[in-house]
Amino acid sequence: MTDLSQLHDAVVSGVPAIHLDTLSDAVPFTSVEHTPAAEVFADRHIGPRGGETAHMLSVVGYHSVDDLVDAAVPASIRTDRPLDLPAARSEEEVLAALRTIAGRNQVMTQMIGQGYSDTITPAVIRRNVLESPAWYTAYTPYQPEIAQGRLEALLNFQTMVTDLTGLDVANASLLDEATAVAEAVALMWRAARGKAGTVVLDRDLFGQSLAVTLGRAEAIGLPVVVADLTDGLPEIEGDLIGVVVQQVGASGRVRDLRAVIAQTKERGGLVTVAADLLALTLLTSPGELGADVSVGSAQRFGVPLFGGGPHAAFMAVRTGLERMLPGRLVGVSIDADGARAYRLALQTREQHIRREKATSNICTAQALLAIVASMYAVYHGPDGLRAIGERVHAHAAGLAELLTGIGVTVEHDTFFDTVRTVVPGKAREVVAQAAAAGVNLWAPDDDHVQIAADERTSSDHLLRIVLAFAVAGVTTLDADDDGTYAFGFSGVGSSNALPAGLRRTSAYLMHPVFHLHRSETAMLRYLRRLSDKDLALDRTMIPLGSCTMKLNATAEMEPISWPEFATIHPYAPTDQTLGYAELVTELQDWLAEITGYAAVSVQPNAGSQGELAGLLAIHGYHASRGEKRDVCLIPASAHGTNAASAALAGMRVVVVATAADGSIDLDDLRAKLEKHGAEVAAIMITYPSTHGVYEEGVRTVCELVHEAGGQVYIDGANLNALVGLARPGELGGDVSHLNLHKTFCIPHGGGGPGVGPVAVAAHLAPFLPGDPTPSSTTANTVAPVSAAPWGSAGILPISWAYVALMGPDGLKTATETAVLAANYLATRLSGHYPVLYTGPNGLVAHECILDLRDITKETGVTAEDVAKRLMDYGFHAPTLSFPVAGTLMIEPTESEDLAELDRFVDALVAIRGEIDAVEAGRWTVAESPLRNAPHTAASVSTDTWEQAYPRELAAFPVAALREGKYWPPVRRIDGAHGDRNLVCSCPPIESYAE
Amino acid sequence: MTDLSQLHDAVVSGVPAIHLDTLSDAVPFTSVEHTPAAEVFADRHIGPRGGETAHMLSVVGYHSVDDLVDAAVPASIRTDRPLDLPAARSEEEVLAALRTIAGRNQVMTQMIGQGYSDTITPAVIRRNVLESPAWYTAYTPYQPEIAQGRLEALLNFQTMVTDLTGLDVANASLLDEATAVAEAVALMWRAARGKAGTVVLDRDLFGQSLAVTLGRAEAIGLPVVVADLTDGLPEIEGDLIGVVVQQVGASGRVRDLRAVIAQTKERGGLVTVAADLLALTLLTSPGELGADVSVGSAQRFGVPLFGGGPHAAFMAVRTGLERMLPGRLVGVSIDADGARAYRLALQTREQHIRREKATSNICTAQALLAIVASMYAVYHGPDGLRAIGERVHAHAAGLAELLTGIGVTVEHDTFFDTVRTVVPGKAREVVAQAAAAGVNLWAPDDDHVQIAADERTSSDHLLRIVLAFAVAGVTTLDADDDGTYAFGFSGVGSSNALPAGLRRTSAYLMHPVFHLHRSETAMLRYLRRLSDKDLALDRTMIPLGSCTMKLNATAEMEPISWPEFATIHPYAPTDQTLGYAELVTELQDWLAEITGYAAVSVQPNAGSQGELAGLLAIHGYHASRGEKRDVCLIPASAHGTNAASAALAGMRVVVVATAADGSIDLDDLRAKLEKHGAEVAAIMITYPSTHGVYEEGVRTVCELVHEAGGQVYIDGANLNALVGLARPGELGGDVSHLNLHKTFCIPHGGGGPGVGPVAVAAHLAPFLPGDPTPSSTTANTVAPVSAAPWGSAGILPISWAYVALMGPDGLKTATETAVLAANYLATRLSGHYPVLYTGPNGLVAHECILDLRDITKETGVTAEDVAKRLMDYGFHAPTLSFPVAGTLMIEPTESEDLAELDRFVDALVAIRGEIDAVEAGRWTVAESPLRNAPHTAASVSTDTWEQAYPRELAAFPVAALREGKYWPPVRRIDGAHGDRNLVCSCPPIESYAE
Repeated sequence: MTDLSQLHDAVVSGVPAIHLDTLSDAVPFTSVEHTPAAEVFADRHIGPRGGETAHMLSVVGYHSVDDLVDAAVPASIRTDRPLDLPAARSEEEVLAALRTIAGRNQVMTQMIGQGYSDTITPAVIRRNVLESPAWYTAYTPYQPEIAQGRLEALLNFQTMVTDLTGLDVANASLLDEATAVAEAVALMWRAARGKAGTVVLDRDLFGQSLAVTLGRAEAIGLPVVVADLTDGLPEIEGDLIGVVVQQVGASGRVRDLRAVIAQTKERGGLVTVAADLLALTLLTSPGELGADVSVGSAQRFGVPLFGGGPHAAFMAVRTGLERMLPGRLVGVSIDADGARAYRLALQTREQHIRREKATSNICTAQALLAIVASMYAVYHGPDGLRAIGERVHAHAAGLAELLTGIGVTVEHDTFFDTVRTVVPGKAREVVAQAAAAGVNLWAPDDDHVQIAADERTSSDHLLRIVLAFAVAGVTTLDADDDGTYAFGFSGVGSSNALPAGLRRTSAYLMHPVFHLHRSETAMLRYLRRLSDKDLALDRTMIPLGSCTMKLNATAEMEPISWPEFATIHPYAPTDQTLGYAELVTELQDWLAEITGYAAVSVQPNAGSQGELAGLLAIHGYHASRGEKRDVCLIPASAHGTNAASAALAGMRVVVVATAADGSIDLDDLRAKLEKHGAEVAAIMITYPSTHGVYEEGVRTVCELVHEAGGQVYIDGANLNALVGLARPGELGGDVSHLNLHKTFCIPHGGGGPGVGPVAVAAHLAPFLPGDPTPSSTTANTVAPVSAAPWGSAGILPISWAYVALMGPDGLKTATETAVLAANYLATRLSGHYPVLYTGPNGLVAHECILDLRDITKETGVTAEDVAKRLMDYGFHAPTLSFPVAGTLMIEPTESEDLAELDRFVDALVAIRGEIDAVEAGRWTVAESPLRNAPHTAASVSTDTWEQAYPRELAAFPVAALREGKYWPPVRRIDGAHGDRNLVCSCPPIESYAE
Repeated sequence: MTDLSQLHDAVVSGVPAIHLDTLSDAVPFTSVEHTPAAEVFADRHIGPRGGETAHMLSVVGYHSVDDLVDAAVPASIRTDRPLDLPAARSEEEVLAALRTIAGRNQVMTQMIGQGYSDTITPAVIRRNVLESPAWYTAYTPYQPEIAQGRLEALLNFQTMVTDLTGLDVANASLLDEATAVAEAVALMWRAARGKAGTVVLDRDLFGQSLAVTLGRAEAIGLPVVVADLTDGLPEIEGDLIGVVVQQVGASGRVRDLRAVIAQTKERGGLVTVAADLLALTLLTSPGELGADVSVGSAQRFGVPLFGGGPHAAFMAVRTGLERMLPGRLVGVSIDADGARAYRLALQTREQHIRREKATSNICTAQALLAIVASMYAVYHGPDGLRAIGERVHAHAAGLAELLTGIGVTVEHDTFFDTVRTVVPGKAREVVAQAAAAGVNLWAPDDDHVQIAADERTSSDHLLRIVLAFAVAGVTTLDADDDGTYAFGFSGVGSSNALPAGLRRTSAYLMHPVFHLHRSETAMLRYLRRLSDKDLALDRTMIPLGSCTMKLNATAEMEPISWPEFATIHPYAPTDQTLGYAELVTELQDWLAEITGYAAVSVQPNAGSQGELAGLLAIHGYHASRGEKRDVCLIPASAHGTNAASAALAGMRVVVVATAADGSIDLDDLRAKLEKHGAEVAAIMITYPSTHGVYEEGVRTVCELVHEAGGQVYIDGANLNALVGLARPGELGGDVSHLNLHKTFCIPHGGGGPGVGPVAVAAHLAPFLPGDPTPSSTTANTVAPVSAAPWGSAGILPISWAYVALMGPDGLKTATETAVLAANYLATRLSGHYPVLYTGPNGLVAHECILDLRDITKETGVTAEDVAKRLMDYGFHAPTLSFPVAGTLMIEPTESEDLAELDRFVDALVAIRGEIDAVEAGRWTVAESPLRNAPHTAASVSTDTWEQAYPRELAAFPVAALREGKYWPPVRRIDGAHGDRNLVCSCPPIESYAE
């Protein structure tokens, strides 16, 4: 193209976009790109700059970052191939690129249903929760004293779920409805305590729920029958463990479940009802019907469709089953002053304690989305929710009447929001005509079309749908003599398709919290008040070992709110989701390049699901070769989730010992391989190890396991120490899962969402998770692990943006800086606290462990005391007692600048001085500010002061705190008290008067 | 349209959008809209609901809202015509409607310049300032103890401006560059202290600066000459008051100003340089050149174009002129504990004190935008800003070389960002061709095209521009033999068009604040830390009388960030701004309907400018009739800005007395009319009066003035008491200005932006402000009052959305609820504090005044003590000592719910108890918690306690505070100390060590 006017025409037409580089042959603008550098995002993402880096290096004792990295990272693991990724782009460029990608998704009226309904996120909640760093940069509330705000919000969620389901205890929260059904099956199985028997699944469960649950049941060898439960239980052989029935059914039908529930009880089984929370505003609750368990999704309570996720699912149980609940459970307890305080209850159930005997392998929850859903209920209150439910039902009933009136067959008499029509052979055409009018409907097969009404449905949509049926030729319409069409329609709101016997009569959401914040002003202030109680990344470093709490940049976060990403239904036709497809494919390719694997699936919507998917891939691989291997070797220092996942994948866990230096004990590994030989399916290791050390022997470990015929699973939890320096796939790994919410900047959201892609070598690629889409024509040889094909698609733009912004050099520099920062802290702190493990040249990787055990022995001051006292200094505690009890694990990440690192060192040094004072006898431990930490503002301004130390030491132990101090809202919380007196929903209002 | 397939086609095509109501003739969906009510926004905007309203009515003693309103509002002022406005729409509907309107604006690459340059708002600043309620819902920092965060940010702004301009003291901030130039002229005039003389304006000032300034000069009779200053000062007769010269000139030229500055000084004049802050990163500063004053816009420091505003302008002066600075000035002082604290300095200059002798009539500043600009400097630091400046210049210089190389004449050798080409007769065609390629250029006339580079400019844009010149036929281009075009171009960055002698050598932004927050993490935390120091609407009621601090709903706020509103240049071709035109026209029509006037202009970008525009309309009207009237009657109780505006409009102020009941003294009015007769231009009244009372006699006042031939100006400050109940235009008003940042929900932004539309009766419509667009072909008979045709266009969607969301009924209910809330407070508080003025039936309007004067006399406790003590209770103070010294004026607005109103009453009742304790001799005033208020956390947790009252009373005087308390970051601030020791930029770092 050398004609200038052609060039101009091309520029004007804008298709294809003309850039200088595409024109370089035509127009010799050779040096035109040589402008002074535009903004470099890596400089914003990475904390230390110029002189700061030099200073940190000098403290650690190295001349350059290269020298340090060469010394810290064994040559044997380093890659010799730089990252082959697109060059770094500026924030503006990446936002523009994402706008282009987003533009390839099609915003539609989504009436597909199947567990995903469009909803209106109140703007005040969107801006002040979903888009607020105070909420989304928070960590999981393991340190409850600095998490009271989100714990209250999650308690509201639990209260909302227990009220609507009519059950006694609900968790907060699960990953999606499909895995929630699978977890319910597992719960019923555990509750049967080893009884051999069968689980019956309702054929009217959502397709994705069936697919995920069947896959999970198969892995653990649990017999399952899928049956039509409309007329009661089918015949089954042997004992009945339990039944899962869905109300509202995937077909839209509302059935009276009382008979099937009674039959199940008679046969000694448990009953799980998969329920729709909005339907429960109008329908008799599962609890009232006699269910033991209820699960479902809270998505339609204000959480965007997000292309499939993240959304919060829930599980509620009747009293007696609460200790078997998977996931996180918020409970009420008291603090050291006897004040009410919230914290996670019954933590002893969780996999990091119970390992393969755990309730489930779930670690991450969907906290941020559960909070949005709970706030939706707070904002609307019971009357508002009921009105929405009525409105949705009225539109569905009105539509059914309209369609019937023009001769379309509606299959069910009773339904809530979903109208199922019978259109023999014409389903695809109706769907196509509706799509042309901007409305997505659902064709489960060629002969049926389903239309799911939602909060956004208007009469305009009904018109479009009616026209689609007519134009598709399902029926013919003739105008009356006067040129109008008489549809025999009595108007939306006049029909009712809810069975009278199932009309809800019980009250719900009577707690004041669902009544007090109904103006936007009140809602805004409630959100602010709660978030102010919490300490998140927007106020302080969160030095959590193994959790990689790095910057969640605004430019990475903004796109998730765009309608082109937020309003897409996961089962929308593929020609409407080209943008997502492009984004996912590119991200998967980039992650494969970074990890050195052949293929990646982003479907797992949490690390735990990634682990499971990886282990199932290994399982499938061995099975495909006719090998029966079911031993999973796991080092003693492994994250508990590893063992729990192995159990869920049907494997037996065999522990491999850890050597004195924290590395895997090779002798013990050889012994275990010798012993289990042909039974060894895999070893699960973490690299760098959970001790934060680059182990020299990792390749040997991989080789030994491979020699034994096993596969190597490398947990990607510590990938932030590897990106650009080494690749798990090159070390000998066959499979890894990543945590996009660690290394790839998805915020922790106060305890989720997470994303846990699974990456595999070529021979495992055929065993990646299958497509959960109910209408998928792909025959799944592998079960899906999540409810949506791309898992939590809606937040993948965050990680895509991070990689695009950083480019290959930025990513490598981030890793190097993370290593530098960890070694800087280790060096500065080692004079005050013993650093437990180090690797080559006495260096740590990207985190370090402070060993408090001797200090505890000598002074009584515990690691927990230090963790809680850090709150008084304005810090989130490091990881407490993992992987070694009595220690603190610190991971600064690359995002903290020198000032913040030094502020943290100053705090720990000052705390060491307080420990010394205990040792010197100035105070006993019990009298010390350490044991009495944290201190609230109220506790330091009491009229009388009875502590052994001065008030100002309690409140302002370092001068910088006077410039602006975070005050913990409660004092140290008595967790055991709460577990003894379990309260897991909002306390009655009378208790507030205390 | 009765054919169904036609209907379907129409639906599919989507143009025009098909809704049931438009199809009702064709399709008898008669009752299809009768679905249960969708979300009603008014229920979210209005605080009290159902039972709360009933309770409040019962306390006030009325059965219904109607009864109360009938009793409170004189029948004589009530309108008999309900609001004729579109019915209320839901948030989703309004957002969709705004998306449609926004879609009619065209997003372009804006290279027009002329004082408005495109810029990149760092995402972290966009989300955490512009889109953060903590920043945008804050009030003006008149109560500095609870405004330290934004005061620090504004001090950074002042430091940035003084550093870059090389002058000593800068304010924070002015409304736009054009009014800043006018203010500079006024300052020079005042500095001349009555010397008769002339002001010389540079012909190379922006057209809008000339238009606004000439209009303002004419109003006060100041002789002005516009001249080409390239070769020095022109001959003028008489004394020289001063010169305003622009660098960079509107033509893009960079000139050496030393000669003209020297000549001006010789002649005893002052020099103002209108400057471009980004150019000053590379050019010798005005201060170094000898200027006395510098003004300009900080828009290109990260503030979106916004279709013309809001943007922050600045003024900096050399020492000696600081007490003449208009607008707000932040200064450093100390608090009661001697700690550094910020507050507004030299408040005695301001118009609310000095009335017609004030420095200027400016009240609102552009705080939020000044904060964005200051944070842009904090984020980039001096090196980053310089790099941006170099990059912008490199692109301009590169473009000049490219254009010259292909034979286009470039007029100036020296320029910064703007290239001026000579294209005889072809300017419009070049602009059209560039626009077709997505780039807006500027044609000041038919023979010149100017291209202004900015931070977003890329080599791709340069190509488009070059092609536009070629295709427009300015030059012919032939390909070389090899088919390429040789442009003789050495590459962007190799050219330099800055005069060597003007290259900046002095340093700037050396203060640590411009170096410490350069990672996004550090920036995010800095923004959070500052905002946490401040108390805004997102945490508490702000019961400011006359300021109407109501909900700024998120749905109203979100659209201002959309690119289709945010990236529009104010001088973009009108066919690109159809969306803005539609929005503005509709909003103007709605405001006219609400106020009962014939025409509205939204151009005034603050209430003060609306006042001025209104008075200038009156002035123009009288002049057009050959009448010379220049007396403006102003009641004693009027807001000081009224008098200041009258002075600016060239009028003499005559004060009318206030009667004992707070109303206008009719006898005195008659006397003044008698005395000034044919000289009376206008009366300026406020209705309801500034005393918060519906005066019965307002129609009489209007009639008397009209009889005397005067016009009636009704200040719209208290319009929130009238909307839907009465119309100023029906009461007898000829003109009003409104405050969209009061009644119409634009947030106060911590001290601006504001919008002050002027509304006029038909006979004044021809005298509304003219178009400031430099290329405007409309011959302006009236001077503009702002720099942009629609003023602060970018925030008008907020008010548009408010009216659309509320609908006529919602607006009326809001007014009624505001009246109810004020009377509820007055009733509940009247037992504890005297309520100063009441109207009919002992009722107040929308606000009430608590009279502390007797209490002060008896106990020594002042209104200020109560205001400061309220901070300890978590409240922003009411309006202090306006309109009556020694009082507190309280306006709850309709947005506060009963719980918050009661919390406020509880606080004031508890404070009354503390006053009683003083009276009873428990403490002296000096010893009391009232005088010692506010209390910081540090002050109540000191090791020793020397106050006469207990700590817990200081910190937690009511129990609810223990659930979450806002802690003022400083104690009571000594304003006088700061004025004696004036420091108006960031204190040197050494002072932090103190």
